[in-house]
Amino acid sequence: MEIVLPEDRYFGPDEKQKKIAMQLYASVAHLPLVCPHGHVDPRMFSDPNYSFGSPADLLIIPDHYVFRMLYSQGVPLEKIGVPRTDGGAVERDHRAIWQTFAEHFYLFRGTPTGAWLAYELRVVFGVTQQLARETAQEIYDHIADKLTQPEFRPRRMFERFQIEVLATTDAATDPLAQHQAIRASGWHGRIVPTFRPDGVVNLDAPGWRQNIDALSAISGITVMSYATLIAALENRRAYFKQMGATATDHAALVPTTEALSATEAEMILQRALAGQATAEDAQRFTGHMLQEMARMSIEDGLVMQLHPGSLRNHNLAIFSRFGLDKGCDIPTPTEYARNLRPLLNTYGNDARLSLILFTLDETAYARELAPLAGHYPAVKLGPPWWFHDSLNGMARYFDQVMETAGLYNTAGFNDDTRAFPSIPARHDVWRRASVNWLAGLVARGYISARDAEEMAHALAYDLAKRAYKL
Amino acid sequence: MEIVLPEDRYFGPDEKQKKIAMQLYASVAHLPLVCPHGHVDPRMFSDPNYSFGSPADLLIIPDHYVFRMLYSQGVPLEKIGVPRTDGGAVERDHRAIWQTFAEHFYLFRGTPTGAWLAYELRVVFGVTQQLARETAQEIYDHIADKLTQPEFRPRRMFERFQIEVLATTDAATDPLAQHQAIRASGWHGRIVPTFRPDGVVNLDAPGWRQNIDALSAISGITVMSYATLIAALENRRAYFKQMGATATDHAALVPTTEALSATEAEMILQRALAGQATAEDAQRFTGHMLQEMARMSIEDGLVMQLHPGSLRNHNLAIFSRFGLDKGCDIPTPTEYARNLRPLLNTYGNDARLSLILFTLDETAYARELAPLAGHYPAVKLGPPWWFHDSLNGMARYFDQVMETAGLYNTAGFNDDTRAFPSIPARHDVWRRASVNWLAGLVARGYISARDAEEMAHALAYDLAKRAYKL
Amino acid sequence: MEIVLPEDRYFGPDEKQKKIAMQLYASVAHLPLVCPHGHVDPRMFSDPNYSFGSPADLLIIPDHYVFRMLYSQGVPLEKIGVPRTDGGAVERDHRAIWQTFAEHFYLFRGTPTGAWLAYELRVVFGVTQQLARETAQEIYDHIADKLTQPEFRPRRMFERFQIEVLATTDAATDPLAQHQAIRASGWHGRIVPTFRPDGVVNLDAPGWRQNIDALSAISGITVMSYATLIAALENRRAYFKQMGATATDHAALVPTTEALSATEAEMILQRALAGQATAEDAQRFTGHMLQEMARMSIEDGLVMQLHPGSLRNHNLAIFSRFGLDKGCDIPTPTEYARNLRPLLNTYGNDARLSLILFTLDETAYARELAPLAGHYPAVKLGPPWWFHDSLNGMARYFDQVMETAGLYNTAGFNDDTRAFPSIPARHDVWRRASVNWLAGLVARGYISARDAEEMAHALAYDLAKRAYKL
Repeated sequence: MEIVLPEDRYFGPDEKQKKIAMQLYASVAHLPLVCPHGHVDPRMFSDPNYSFGSPADLLIIPDHYVFRMLYSQGVPLEKIGVPRTDGGAVERDHRAIWQTFAEHFYLFRGTPTGAWLAYELRVVFGVTQQLARETAQEIYDHIADKLTQPEFRPRRMFERFQIEVLATTDAATDPLAQHQAIRASGWHGRIVPTFRPDGVVNLDAPGWRQNIDALSAISGITVMSYATLIAALENRRAYFKQMGATATDHAALVPTTEALSATEAEMILQRALAGQATAEDAQRFTGHMLQEMARMSIEDGLVMQLHPGSLRNHNLAIFSRFGLDKGCDIPTPTEYARNLRPLLNTYGNDARLSLILFTLDETAYARELAPLAGHYPAVKLGPPWWFHDSLNGMARYFDQVMETAGLYNTAGFNDDTRAFPSIPARHDVWRRASVNWLAGLVARGYISARDAEEMAHALAYDLAKRAYKL
Repeated sequence: MEIVLPEDRYFGPDEKQKKIAMQLYASVAHLPLVCPHGHVDPRMFSDPNYSFGSPADLLIIPDHYVFRMLYSQGVPLEKIGVPRTDGGAVERDHRAIWQTFAEHFYLFRGTPTGAWLAYELRVVFGVTQQLARETAQEIYDHIADKLTQPEFRPRRMFERFQIEVLATTDAATDPLAQHQAIRASGWHGRIVPTFRPDGVVNLDAPGWRQNIDALSAISGITVMSYATLIAALENRRAYFKQMGATATDHAALVPTTEALSATEAEMILQRALAGQATAEDAQRFTGHMLQEMARMSIEDGLVMQLHPGSLRNHNLAIFSRFGLDKGCDIPTPTEYARNLRPLLNTYGNDARLSLILFTLDETAYARELAPLAGHYPAVKLGPPWWFHDSLNGMARYFDQVMETAGLYNTAGFNDDTRAFPSIPARHDVWRRASVNWLAGLVARGYISARDAEEMAHALAYDLAKRAYKL
Repeated sequence: MEIVLPEDRYFGPDEKQKKIAMQLYASVAHLPLVCPHGHVDPRMFSDPNYSFGSPADLLIIPDHYVFRMLYSQGVPLEKIGVPRTDGGAVERDHRAIWQTFAEHFYLFRGTPTGAWLAYELRVVFGVTQQLARETAQEIYDHIADKLTQPEFRPRRMFERFQIEVLATTDAATDPLAQHQAIRASGWHGRIVPTFRPDGVVNLDAPGWRQNIDALSAISGITVMSYATLIAALENRRAYFKQMGATATDHAALVPTTEALSATEAEMILQRALAGQATAEDAQRFTGHMLQEMARMSIEDGLVMQLHPGSLRNHNLAIFSRFGLDKGCDIPTPTEYARNLRPLLNTYGNDARLSLILFTLDETAYARELAPLAGHYPAVKLGPPWWFHDSLNGMARYFDQVMETAGLYNTAGFNDDTRAFPSIPARHDVWRRASVNWLAGLVARGYISARDAEEMAHALAYDLAKRAYKL
């Protein structure tokens, strides 16, 4: 893949429209980055001398966006240095891993991962050569050298990237020691946690019983009943909030919601504590806890995010050999109108709730999600997620969501990444895609240029801050 | 929201394509409007001195497209003057309602409702200022003044809009008194009813039992059996037809169809009359009555419309407080191939049947609806419906339907509105979207300019007239 | 329909982008055609003097793309000369059929069938007039005359079209006599069979029992047990491979896969042989046989194609009167992630398997198919299929598949046609759509011009050869 990063990249070719897009882009390109949802490790910022390791450590080995593409073309994950759960041998020569990557770089032509990598190499690391078989080692040296320099420590890059706030994602049982250390360090970067209770509220989560014990231990409330579970969760939410959290995050294969009676909830929980919960128990309890989380959000003001529809670990061979998040999670058809109805009928009219919905099933954009967001005061739509966090994914989102939901029922952008240096690349794609969409509306006489400017600012900055109460 | 209505609005930015679009548009812009499906109140035309009331009465209070967007941003419906079912207090100061609307007008940026409102304000009412907090009252005065003038009476606007025919939607039990009055008045405007029997054939319709009594009363046929129900329906269809109707209209959450045996139909109806019908009874009976309606259409020639897939009154709090049609109907995934198979296998090969299908689930456009329309002589596809009656919704429709169905298996446009002054705005969006699509085909060498001109005429005028036998 | 075939057809109107597209097109326009999947009758090539018959024989009577459109507008299939299964009377005057076709030619405006017909008339047969009521007979004469000339014999057209290889589709029980005759003839055109076992592995296939007997006869292995069925299938695969086959092809309404135990498989097969298999038996057995076919593919190297989701013979009246493939097959919603999981978990990590997936449900492109192809080494995505083999269908495919799957996990193009003279037309549409997509990426700074050129070559030629091991 040849890197091309022209100044007018990602804008439609029509000259008139492009001129409008360029003007809009100039008005938002330098705004600070608001990063309300992602998976960056807070350890990067708690230790002022944290090092990213080698170029392969930083850009390849931990990034499932990258290695899944090589894997799909027959490159074993071992050869890319992805660690095995059994500690078995994998490639340890990071130069060899980098060489493999370079030789397969053509696979990323026309992909969002390719676009992000191009930005990271050229803009973040100042690589001027094309990455190819012959140049791989020279570029490796170049990046490795950069990574030894103080300005490539995470805190300096955070400042250079102009990140105004960065939210991590943290288990309900996490002591948030890294966040405490960041606060104690006197560094002024704003890193906030996000409360993710899946491990304790989804009865079928791996290690649920141990998670419950950990929850008891960290909250000081022994979880032995539904009431104590609720109390422990409320305790943790309060702590997260005290540590700066403004949001929670929830996953579910199916976004079903249901208010169980207190008796039912208790009975299911007791079965689970006794190791006897059924699959139906788990689904109903998760649906019930989503309702409870909405209730708590109304009380404590934490924004609630819902990320449903991913069939995790589709490839069991890869899962058993390499563990979670190895590029084999596959989206599934996801229904929202009926599934969310119980929750929305209970809490959806309360503007104190901010429920941000995501989808991996784009068919729901125009059919269910935009109509829900365009009606319920509590509902906002999150940006295109995961596989759809791409130029075309964004174009489809703007096309299918905005006319019905209205811009102001959306939640701006979030980068949702664990690849820290890709953050500015991802926001840049979003900002360019946003202004390109708006320029198209202006060029077609749908909106005025002044409205477009305000909308561009909203998409780049305001909507995310407002939706996440940042 | 700033109003911009350039002459070349909604056309793609490419100059060559736009020139073609402008030429095509010129050839259809002044054609009369054919309005074969909508929800305008015939009372507007039966009384020659009918007044629209205040600007808020006309443009805001009855229009769920408008107030749902304000509601989604936390504005209570009471504050917009939407009447409560219990008669409780709502805002009665229409200037205050208008002010609230003006201050939230920015919410409509880039939405079809925004486009229609822009047209109504600028073109229909001659408002030249931007609508904003400061100008709201002045514009209110301007419109209120217009509404007192004779040329802003419905009949005059009907003529000014060049409406050739306007179909209303009327319950099977409606005596059509307004339609009789219109005919008796000597006014030459063509207003025709549409036969909508949902209230008497969907056993779970609110007030079904009373509706049956009303049907007995108005038809003079006491409905006490399946045979008398059929006879009463045929009686009403004949009356509607005599009053000018050319079509029927049917709603169903799921478009299931099934031919019950006479015995089964009788048993289900008897259970319903005894107040003992089950949900399954209701669904099966509706599916059976769709078949019966198709049979009757073949006999009496009335065009049959099917509007499935809307999960009505999703928000029960709003429904109980404000009633039907308050912006909380949410589309659902809708399957057509299997559901319609029984009906189509019985009647679909009969060209005397004209069955016009609509969808709120766009995934069916290319997958099921276009292939069905492109095969069965009886099937035509209706235009983009409701949430999809928008610039992008139309573009998706042209993109996903036309290649497989072929233009001539579609039914042109209908405005489907209860907001009378929005009618020319909606047709204008359709005509512009149509010629923009055609101009794209010409510019890409897919069709000839002469073919495009005929197709533009068909989309603007001929197809609707032909499909609805008007 | 007026025929327009400008040199720059199908390219977007922007001049800068079009110039890039034209350059890319010039680089691929004259590449040989690789046709790895289709339904051309091999008889055309086994007899050196094979004649296509009349213009109606060639272009209308056998082509369901053509006659379904006329049928949808009320033209009886009898009037188009489509043979009845009962041998009943149909139109035998081919000039009359041609006249009917010409008078309905306008129905094909803006359709892919229209585009192919335009190419065939103008480019393949050199028709310079517009096809219309008045010119129909003259054009009939023109084509009829061509069809008498030696250069319009199939073999000569094969050479003129520059077809490098053409795969037919053949039942497992087919003796491949035509393929033997082609090989024996000394003609150098490469025609290869494809192994399609649906008739013997789908227990509910029409005539399954007789097909099993035919399989026994042709393989010399009496199919009386699961083991003998497997042996007979392996025997036939070996024969097909020996005759040049590189691929198999499989249809299923639902792409369910499941590994039955040997005992279960045996019991189901025995029930089927006894005429007592249930619908559930059939579905489970098909799912099991898909797994078995994947296993065999790993062993013998034959590429495996899966074409699911078509609800065949939706219109029973047409099916009973005219038989299979009469334009009344309707796509249905199709799920891949869960259905294919058993097969992929067993064989999907094995790069020796090449499993090419197709869909008639485009919602699966971005949601399930691209993520599957972008992860599993065995999975490739076939090109837009059937109703989606069109300009817009291709644009949607590029838009929704490529960013996630990556270009190199796709399988290039196949024409999938039984209409031999449409082959170059179909490839031309694909090549133009491909370079138009790539030109858009270049114009928007997403990829470099050099990358685009390699990608264009891959789409036009390399990917199909590689995916099908040709």
